[in-house]
Amino acid sequence: MFIIGELLNCTRKRVGAAAQNRDAEYIKEISHNQVNAGANVLDVNGGIPGQEVECLSWLVNVVQEALEIPLCLDSADVVALKSALPLCKQRPMINSITDELARYQAVLPLLKEYHAKVIALCMGAAGPPTGVEDRVATACRLVDGLTGEGIALDDIYVDLCVLPASTGSEHGKALLEAIGQVRGRYPGVHISAGVSNVSYGLPERKLLNEVFLLLLMARGLDAAIVDPCDRQLMLNIKAAEALLGRDEYCVEYIRAYREGKLGLPAA
Amino acid sequence: MFIIGELLNCTRKRVGAAAQNRDAEYIKEISHNQVNAGANVLDVNGGIPGQEVECLSWLVNVVQEALEIPLCLDSADVVALKSALPLCKQRPMINSITDELARYQAVLPLLKEYHAKVIALCMGAAGPPTGVEDRVATACRLVDGLTGEGIALDDIYVDLCVLPASTGSEHGKALLEAIGQVRGRYPGVHISAGVSNVSYGLPERKLLNEVFLLLLMARGLDAAIVDPCDRQLMLNIKAAEALLGRDEYCVEYIRAYREGKLGLPAA
Repeated sequence: MFIIGELLNCTRKRVGAAAQNRDAEYIKEISHNQVNAGANVLDVNGGIPGQEVECLSWLVNVVQEALEIPLCLDSADVVALKSALPLCKQRPMINSITDELARYQAVLPLLKEYHAKVIALCMGAAGPPTGVEDRVATACRLVDGLTGEGIALDDIYVDLCVLPASTGSEHGKALLEAIGQVRGRYPGVHISAGVSNVSYGLPERKLLNEVFLLLLMARGLDAAIVDPCDRQLMLNIKAAEALLGRDEYCVEYIRAYREGKLGLPAA
Repeated sequence: MFIIGELLNCTRKRVGAAAQNRDAEYIKEISHNQVNAGANVLDVNGGIPGQEVECLSWLVNVVQEALEIPLCLDSADVVALKSALPLCKQRPMINSITDELARYQAVLPLLKEYHAKVIALCMGAAGPPTGVEDRVATACRLVDGLTGEGIALDDIYVDLCVLPASTGSEHGKALLEAIGQVRGRYPGVHISAGVSNVSYGLPERKLLNEVFLLLLMARGLDAAIVDPCDRQLMLNIKAAEALLGRDEYCVEYIRAYREGKLGLPAA
């Protein structure tokens, strides 16, 4: 499972404040916490209105002073991406390219120039998809378009749009079905999700996020933007990898147990 | 989700001892615990070698002295079933009919006579299936056979055989795929699983059982033989029902929260 740590996001109050105050220590601390907890990549979102360009670049530099980890630049602002990409010391990831024409045409050259991995978010000009067919059709357009431009399937992380369960009882089921279809059609592509969207407006969000991630994994999800510091979530992933045959002979699971890493968190 | 409580099983040391000592209080206590925790039916297994016939009937009587709940008679011994079935005060369930000829022919008339629900375990003469195709083929033979005999689809709980993850990395994936296919083919049938088999021989069994149940639910499982006293497992089910659109507008989930029933267990 490819874990994209979600905590470095300026739309989170505490992180936004730290970015505005240029509180590098706090940013480094959350970065370390996420990497220690098992993140493979850190998502970096500098989305403070009017300051995103400077903020994203500042964050990228601060994180890289603290540790060596690939970054996923999370912005819809192409100027911010263009400023931050040259600063990345490891191969970057871009979150995200979409099926909106202007954004697609602006981001595609950046993928090529920086040999970046990319989250292909199934969002069109008409907004987020809500059914199975629109999701799958958008995914196919994005994957076929990107691979046609020479982007490797292995560098594409399709995101089929997580919508809040509170806004529609059918959303979760539609997403699961769409994931299954895309997984069947492109065995070599990655499928990711911004899991915590699902619990927006509902109580006990951690429980919902933890459970939803497993439901998605059962259909073929192999990457996720999540809070890696949610210990139960990371334990669930280890167990799911063993149960889904992605951890041959449960070797990693048993090793984690022997190293005392499977202890459950206190409530 | 249809929860079949698994704890009244004489192959469990403490329960087997209680049954042999005719310790009715202990049996009543576990029965109450399971019902209070949310079990819809209690599985009753009297499998003590040489004593199963008497033991199963004794258990059935003791549970029914304590509470009103349907029972699922869990036995491969037709004599034990025949003795216990007339004692059931509510419509019984039989665990299980299989694709083994003698057992099939012996159990079928009991289903008709007692208008019983039934777990159709996909086990053939050659033993448990291990792949996708043999599972699905066995399931189809059982479902088509039973409905052809007049058993309602709604009374059939297909069990596609949970095998321990420790005995083969591909088992989990094959089961998930088979569940998806059977769910697609028979939308009206129930699909159940004896979940805890999956963790046999591995550490932190509760974690594995909890996670596996969610993976199975994502593919169409709507019933399970589990320990309803595993609070995390029951919380996960509530969350999954909301996320899978089986709990319209998350009404049940939100009610459980308001009633203080979503608090997570202490580790």
